Amino acid sequence: MAKNANPVRGTRDIMPQEMILRDDIESLILKTYRDHGFERIETPAIESLDYLLDSEGGENLKMLFTIMKRGEKLSLSKDADIRELCDIGLRYDLTLPLSRFYSNNSQNLNLPFKAIQIGNVYRAERPQKGRFRSFKQCDIDIIGDTTFAAEVELIDTTSKALERIGFGDFIVRINDRRILSGIIRSAGFDTDSVEIVSIILDKKDKIGRDGVINDLVEKEFPRDNAEKLLLMTEMLTEENLDTFEIDDEVKKNLKNVIQAIRSLAKDSYKIIFDPTLVRGMGYYTGMIFEISYGPYGFSIAGGGRYDNMIGKFSKESVPAVGFSIGFERIISIMMEENKYKPADYKKLALIYKSESEIASAVEQADQLRKLGYSVSLIKGKKKLGKQLSQLETYGFDYYLDGSKNEGVKELGTKS
Amino acid sequence: MAKNANPVRGTRDIMPQEMILRDDIESLILKTYRDHGFERIETPAIESLDYLLDSEGGENLKMLFTIMKRGEKLSLSKDADIRELCDIGLRYDLTLPLSRFYSNNSQNLNLPFKAIQIGNVYRAERPQKGRFRSFKQCDIDIIGDTTFAAEVELIDTTSKALERIGFGDFIVRINDRRILSGIIRSAGFDTDSVEIVSIILDKKDKIGRDGVINDLVEKEFPRDNAEKLLLMTEMLTEENLDTFEIDDEVKKNLKNVIQAIRSLAKDSYKIIFDPTLVRGMGYYTGMIFEISYGPYGFSIAGGGRYDNMIGKFSKESVPAVGFSIGFERIISIMMEENKYKPADYKKLALIYKSESEIASAVEQADQLRKLGYSVSLIKGKKKLGKQLSQLETYGFDYYLDGSKNEGVKELGTKS
Repeated sequence: MAKNANPVRGTRDIMPQEMILRDDIESLILKTYRDHGFERIETPAIESLDYLLDSEGGENLKMLFTIMKRGEKLSLSKDADIRELCDIGLRYDLTLPLSRFYSNNSQNLNLPFKAIQIGNVYRAERPQKGRFRSFKQCDIDIIGDTTFAAEVELIDTTSKALERIGFGDFIVRINDRRILSGIIRSAGFDTDSVEIVSIILDKKDKIGRDGVINDLVEKEFPRDNAEKLLLMTEMLTEENLDTFEIDDEVKKNLKNVIQAIRSLAKDSYKIIFDPTLVRGMGYYTGMIFEISYGPYGFSIAGGGRYDNMIGKFSKESVPAVGFSIGFERIISIMMEENKYKPADYKKLALIYKSESEIASAVEQADQLRKLGYSVSLIKGKKKLGKQLSQLETYGFDYYLDGSKNEGVKELGTKS
Repeated sequence: MAKNANPVRGTRDIMPQEMILRDDIESLILKTYRDHGFERIETPAIESLDYLLDSEGGENLKMLFTIMKRGEKLSLSKDADIRELCDIGLRYDLTLPLSRFYSNNSQNLNLPFKAIQIGNVYRAERPQKGRFRSFKQCDIDIIGDTTFAAEVELIDTTSKALERIGFGDFIVRINDRRILSGIIRSAGFDTDSVEIVSIILDKKDKIGRDGVINDLVEKEFPRDNAEKLLLMTEMLTEENLDTFEIDDEVKKNLKNVIQAIRSLAKDSYKIIFDPTLVRGMGYYTGMIFEISYGPYGFSIAGGGRYDNMIGKFSKESVPAVGFSIGFERIISIMMEENKYKPADYKKLALIYKSESEIASAVEQADQLRKLGYSVSLIKGKKKLGKQLSQLETYGFDYYLDGSKNEGVKELGTKS
């Protein structure tokens, strides 16, 4: 019996037409990143499970794909720990691998190190429209710069990349983890609760204001604190930020970034302070940012500062900040909006009569390739007319009948 | 305590300089493939374990990375089957995924379908120099063409790609699985033993003639048969192939391919019939081929015809043949031989004085990018002279001091 040929649940096959778009977009993004002085590196898709489980990846740690140890004896109790069975896992983002990479190779890298990473990450999410278990991210990170110049450079570079591939009129939302935790504590929560409260607040887009309050109450936090928290996030604006009691340096840096980006963006995109912005990962320590696009406010990029992660691998703590473009989201918007016409391949069918002509047909094909055609050899059928209309259906634009001396002809232009 | 920051055993981190080379080479290969009428597709790196285990992947099946089912209860006996614990695995090649892809999407594809796949595959090999557990392959396949024109097109396209990236003077070795199994049976082995005998014969490069004979004897095959087999593979040549009793069509097609490629190659590379060529996979059904390069005869590409694999997924049997470039081998040869000078990035450091100048420095950087520089913003230090020699060490070629009106200056040209 023939097997079901679907890809693994939550993943997808990508067809040729989409691949042309993806390849074009990926190289435009890569080119923009490189023009801005970033350098591409690559790490394996598999990482040690120890690192992954200890990485403050928030909810993503519940979605790890873990890989069986090899040759392991399977005499296990019901409560066996995952680490007894598995020793590696698939990466869920590109930030942890970069931190490990930097620590592993720091003796050959200079600070600030400006990294590009483009690759797939894996999360066993509940499959739903637009969410995949394997998806590509395009990240840039600056390692070794404590100043807000790093944030400005990341936001500017990412915005330029988005504009270059045809996205304009997006909104950069920015916050600082220290402002967020300040609000949470001011609302009456204790320091230990900041992380769980942040995670619940992050769901506001999906479950709404009342949903957040209910979830907090369900976790046995006082309803008063929950109400106060929501009110504070709603009242706080860029203008009244100064009245809020928090480290002056934090506020000043945030304002500086907003100001610099605003002057760079001119009117082509916006940047706003958004005190409800959380970003899921536990590893962020300072500014966090996200780019929303379109009427539904889809998040198409996200990032932030994570000054403590590299310290887990290195002896010294090294500051770092990164920004990641969600490649799949970008592509699916482009496909839906028909945003981009990929480079045109002039597909030509070179028709040959018999296999004995193959070698000379291949040589002829090379000549045609030099003229810019993408050439396929096709064996001629008896009824040329019928074959030509079939070739047209197959997406060919031109043909050349090798048995005649007539040159290249366009398909579908019936005279 | 700081963690060990090494990548997972058998994998590696890739540094910026190598990535520039890899990106250049990958796009040259991709461009060549597309010029020859192939179309790129992509499938996920994870595939159903059922498919993988049932794929006739030969020795590779012993090297599968398997991924734990999620939320599985671990009450297992010592002899639990891997399928009770794991439901997916990492692909070990790109051929099985392509067969599944074709079957899943055949209603939207035309025959012959000429596919490009470039991606990483995973094998838990014993780590050794030049062998990795995660490595990239560049495959082309033709689905739906039974004629030897498909083999010619694959070998021609792969050779052109290799020549384009600076590899010349290689040797294409070609054989046919049906000739191979014919020899094995003629030497006195029965049909059921053909696969295991092939696998042992395949090791001749590594363990030598005597090693092969010993291994066969160890598997309790008669020494006479083993000796006869080795002798036959050593005696058989392109010239005396006709005296060998095997299907005429098989011999004719093989000779046609050799002839066509020889006329295309002119003197820039060679093609030879090699009756000892096996190729590890169990799924090959017809011609098989490999490209060897350099004094050590490193295999840099391999492929063959696999007419039965797609039939496992589809109702109908569909002919298919593919050729894969071993990207890692190519890159490591290029790095060792210093074969290729990647595109030059003119790295420029734009020095700014204080964070308040960031926005205007970014604008200035954009102007410089338009002139072809890859620009990084660097905060100026007090001692400019010392900083400039540091920037030179860091690989910068040019600098511009934003606080002066002096234009771009070259680093390291002390006047």
